Amino acid sequence: MSAPTKPSVVYGRPVSTDGVPNLYEGTPVVPWTPPEPGIDNLGITSVDTFAVPGVGEYTVPFEGWVRVVRSNPTSDGWSQAEVYTNLIEMKMTGHCEELGTITVSLNPDCLSTGMIRTPFDPYAGEGPSAKACRMSVGAIFEMPKLGLRLVNKEPILLTIDDVRSIPPAGAPGKGQIYRMLPLHDINDLEGEPVAYLTSLRFNMGGYLAKEVFTS
Amino acid sequence: MSAPTKPSVVYGRPVSTDGVPNLYEGTPVVPWTPPEPGIDNLGITSVDTFAVPGVGEYTVPFEGWVRVVRSNPTSDGWSQAEVYTNLIEMKMTGHCEELGTITVSLNPDCLSTGMIRTPFDPYAGEGPSAKACRMSVGAIFEMPKLGLRLVNKEPILLTIDDVRSIPPAGAPGKGQIYRMLPLHDINDLEGEPVAYLTSLRFNMGGYLAKEVFTS
Repeated sequence: MSAPTKPSVVYGRPVSTDGVPNLYEGTPVVPWTPPEPGIDNLGITSVDTFAVPGVGEYTVPFEGWVRVVRSNPTSDGWSQAEVYTNLIEMKMTGHCEELGTITVSLNPDCLSTGMIRTPFDPYAGEGPSAKACRMSVGAIFEMPKLGLRLVNKEPILLTIDDVRSIPPAGAPGKGQIYRMLPLHDINDLEGEPVAYLTSLRFNMGGYLAKEVFTS
Repeated sequence: MSAPTKPSVVYGRPVSTDGVPNLYEGTPVVPWTPPEPGIDNLGITSVDTFAVPGVGEYTVPFEGWVRVVRSNPTSDGWSQAEVYTNLIEMKMTGHCEELGTITVSLNPDCLSTGMIRTPFDPYAGEGPSAKACRMSVGAIFEMPKLGLRLVNKEPILLTIDDVRSIPPAGAPGKGQIYRMLPLHDINDLEGEPVAYLTSLRFNMGGYLAKEVFTS
């Protein structure tokens, strides 16, 4: 379980993991309160659609987990606080008949970064403002049935709106994909895209037990 | 007028400029026909909105030009053809009272790449299908009044829909910005974002006279 080292592409702000505690099942999630730094070990599910030119479009459900390091909030106050995040590990598995089993992990050549802050167009309403969460991800999609490992060269932007707690455990999110995001063969990065991500929806899960990550 | 060399970030497929002719004012643009490779020297206008935390949000009109190299189409047939593009030079200037004069150019540390292809959800209708154009851009926003040069670390995704000719001269387009795209001080790339792009709309212009680029 090693974090990516020396990525050549950094999509945002790096966050150090030095001395930051791992948080597992049982960690309280407190609404409207910027938490101490932590490494969130969370479940995640997603439904991704892949288009393969000339072949077809396939929608695949995935299930797995992520490990996200969170920075010290820039403020104790909820509405002012910005929190920076790095996705330090990810494992998701999905299956469909045509593409076989697909495993998604982080591309170690990219530092996948994100942030949580109050949007400039906050939700109207009573009480404190919900925040917006965004994360730019570089992933590897392993498709052994097709003998392919696909990577994105533009980040996949994952967003969660209406964030009322950090982490936004249990919240639905969306991959902000405009029509099609090119996926390249990791062994032919300068060639034509092999496939495209055309849709991605996900649900951030809650804290998982430590055993999930050590087995 | 030098193209970026050895960028550390490559958002898509590189396109060679070797032996590719420059195309200026007077070049015909033929609908529904994949053209020979060329370097398109085109006008462009945009309206960008910048949010500066704690200060305000400013909408700035820009005007300028781009130079885009286009690959050989992958097919002679319009509907099958894919065309790859690199943005090799850009200069846009805008002004607002609070931010002063802003100059936008390419970030030489990024290779700004794009493609034109038929979308997987093509427009219904009679006749040939319109294509979709996308370009991932790394830019530098120079704001001398504020003593700042800002860069994006996630690409700015510029899209044009309903593309009926290549280049899509005269077509409106949009920056696919979800809520806010962080802009960093070029001298503090690991620091907090200094500002955010919250909206970008543009219009691709037509071919410009050679004199525009040699004066």
